[in-house]
Amino acid sequence: MNKSMYNTIENYMYECMRDAAHDPEHIFRVLYLSLNIASKITEKIDFDILIASCLLHDIGRGEQYKNPNICHAAIGGAMAKEFLLKYGWSEKDSDHVKDCISTHRFRGNNVPKTLEAKILFDSDKLDVAGCLGVARTLMYKGIVGSNLYEIRDDKICFGENKNDKDTFLKEYNFKLKNLYDNFYTKEAKEMAKSQKECAQLFYNNLIDQINGIYGSKEIINEYIIEY
Amino acid sequence: MNKSMYNTIENYMYECMRDAAHDPEHIFRVLYLSLNIASKITEKIDFDILIASCLLHDIGRGEQYKNPNICHAAIGGAMAKEFLLKYGWSEKDSDHVKDCISTHRFRGNNVPKTLEAKILFDSDKLDVAGCLGVARTLMYKGIVGSNLYEIRDDKICFGENKNDKDTFLKEYNFKLKNLYDNFYTKEAKEMAKSQKECAQLFYNNLIDQINGIYGSKEIINEYIIEY
Repeated sequence: MNKSMYNTIENYMYECMRDAAHDPEHIFRVLYLSLNIASKITEKIDFDILIASCLLHDIGRGEQYKNPNICHAAIGGAMAKEFLLKYGWSEKDSDHVKDCISTHRFRGNNVPKTLEAKILFDSDKLDVAGCLGVARTLMYKGIVGSNLYEIRDDKICFGENKNDKDTFLKEYNFKLKNLYDNFYTKEAKEMAKSQKECAQLFYNNLIDQINGIYGSKEIINEYIIEY
Repeated sequence: MNKSMYNTIENYMYECMRDAAHDPEHIFRVLYLSLNIASKITEKIDFDILIASCLLHDIGRGEQYKNPNICHAAIGGAMAKEFLLKYGWSEKDSDHVKDCISTHRFRGNNVPKTLEAKILFDSDKLDVAGCLGVARTLMYKGIVGSNLYEIRDDKICFGENKNDKDTFLKEYNFKLKNLYDNFYTKEAKEMAKSQKECAQLFYNNLIDQINGIYGSKEIINEYIIEY
């Protein structure tokens, strides 16, 4: 890819980005993670496809934000195709980028099929792995007004049940904890191993600290007189 | 303190609380931490003063939010005194609570003098220690729209310099890292020791992860043609 095309794609990405947890630095980290994974893979990789897919993979987030029924991966793929065609990319390559983007979000029926799509998927998950994933998730929970944990019937909920409120602890238990089983490339799986331990350690330390604090709750009964 | 007075103070606190990082659970954690510290201290402690001071210590935050020139500790102390006098507390006790609250924020000239004031100060700092402190700070950074780190002149700033932007990493380096030297009671200092290690570990893992990702940045030069 030449520099001018790279800049054109990068500028379009900047135009489309919104909130702090999905700020442009997430995009660049996904790009660098993809390049790192790709550098360890011996099979042939189309780097133009990979670079364009990384840069544009979250451009649909603004649309999803406006209408939560829209999937940012699906609309982002379509937006990317339309954009690339306008700048002279072939139908085949534009479709390839579209497919990478539209399959970066879920496993399910719409899974990444090409190597470039798998690398993008894995990089996006690596960016929410480890302490960085914990940090990004906590900032996002702040933005959307969620809490760290829920207090219900005077007890702490650690977010282990589906009907618990949307808190950081629930997000950890339902998403962050499980992402390590879902990588496509063995290179990403390997990179994620130590990140898993770091995140788990943070979570365990946090739970211990919270439990320790609430463990002193009953002391108050010695000083409050019921009558 | 009787239950009805406790409830009256608690309700006033609820009325005054605002943003997610200083939500009511912070207040209760500070209360429980204070009770824990107090339970380890052999000297005489006035628990009515301590409990009221804990519950009311952040009631001035709303005023500070509206006008950042106002110090929430100073105005919160005055609000608490006025409130307690209205509910029949003596001038002396109301003043004691006022002093605890007005000295909970800074060292400097206005330092906590009584044991109750020192316990409140230490508990408030313990609640921003360790992984819980990291988590609360990250959520708060999300709320106020700060980033995790700053990119300047194409390099990561780790927030070690005064002129760096207000990011999580800067907050860690300028505040979280140093709070462990500022406890008044040896009981709190002891409780903070393992929390310091947990927070430091998170920070180090986060920095390693970020450095690892940006370390792959240069690979892109192999695939972008300048012309």
